[in-house]
Amino acid sequence: MSRFAVASLACLLLGVQAAPVHGDAVRDAVDAGNAAFVKAFLAGDAKAVSELYTEDGVVMAPGAAPARGRAAIAAFWGGAMKETRGVRLETATVESHGDLAFEDGVVHLLGSDGRESSARYVVVWKRTGGRWLMHRDIWNAGPAAAP
Amino acid sequence: MSRFAVASLACLLLGVQAAPVHGDAVRDAVDAGNAAFVKAFLAGDAKAVSELYTEDGVVMAPGAAPARGRAAIAAFWGGAMKETRGVRLETATVESHGDLAFEDGVVHLLGSDGRESSARYVVVWKRTGGRWLMHRDIWNAGPAAAP
Repeated sequence: MSRFAVASLACLLLGVQAAPVHGDAVRDAVDAGNAAFVKAFLAGDAKAVSELYTEDGVVMAPGAAPARGRAAIAAFWGGAMKETRGVRLETATVESHGDLAFEDGVVHLLGSDGRESSARYVVVWKRTGGRWLMHRDIWNAGPAAAP
Repeated sequence: MSRFAVASLACLLLGVQAAPVHGDAVRDAVDAGNAAFVKAFLAGDAKAVSELYTEDGVVMAPGAAPARGRAAIAAFWGGAMKETRGVRLETATVESHGDLAFEDGVVHLLGSDGRESSARYVVVWKRTGGRWLMHRDIWNAGPAAAP
């Protein structure tokens, strides 16, 4: 196993993200939200994960019924956590206007069976009561980038 | 085949959408954009479809590399058109702030092999030069709604 692979695996397991410096308040809020997501996810705290979404947020996971609202979102992620031991988010784009923003990127997963996978995602973020929360979360499998 | 099934199939084939009355300018723009998408798609006009996206728009289709920019988007949809003879968009939500909006909903497809399928989607719309264009387009397969 190469040192890169070991380091990648360690990052996956620990959910480590490089700390980016942007000077963009929305991007910083998205980064903070994602760091909180990874932390709560790896702690197995589905309720804390669900509270990073709006009250009427929707998670659209491939093959699953859309999870609408925090209770459904907690139930979805609670199930997914059992099959996952590492998660790392690689944000590519954040654009915003007022209280609405979107993010796209790639999520890297390490399954509890040791299998690595990745998916491309779009998250719509909404500032609610002054706090940026995930409002729509959708992903699918496929190559991470254009060839 | 029931009359409903015949009517559904006819709607799929023709890309017919009920004309909604919203009084919401952004929702109206999204509906008009979607109607233009269906029309260009069924006409086999991949270039016209690509012009409904921003210059740096991205289409993330399951299993395919992200198509970034109008040339890549035209190439992607040009290929998909060959496998599809009906498309119908069922918008569930449109929310906007300033020049940014998102839409979610369900797309119903009729394959050239006669097979019906559907997918859940999120589209990020961006007002560019006064015109609402698709900026991110992602979908996946799964049940259309929560159980």
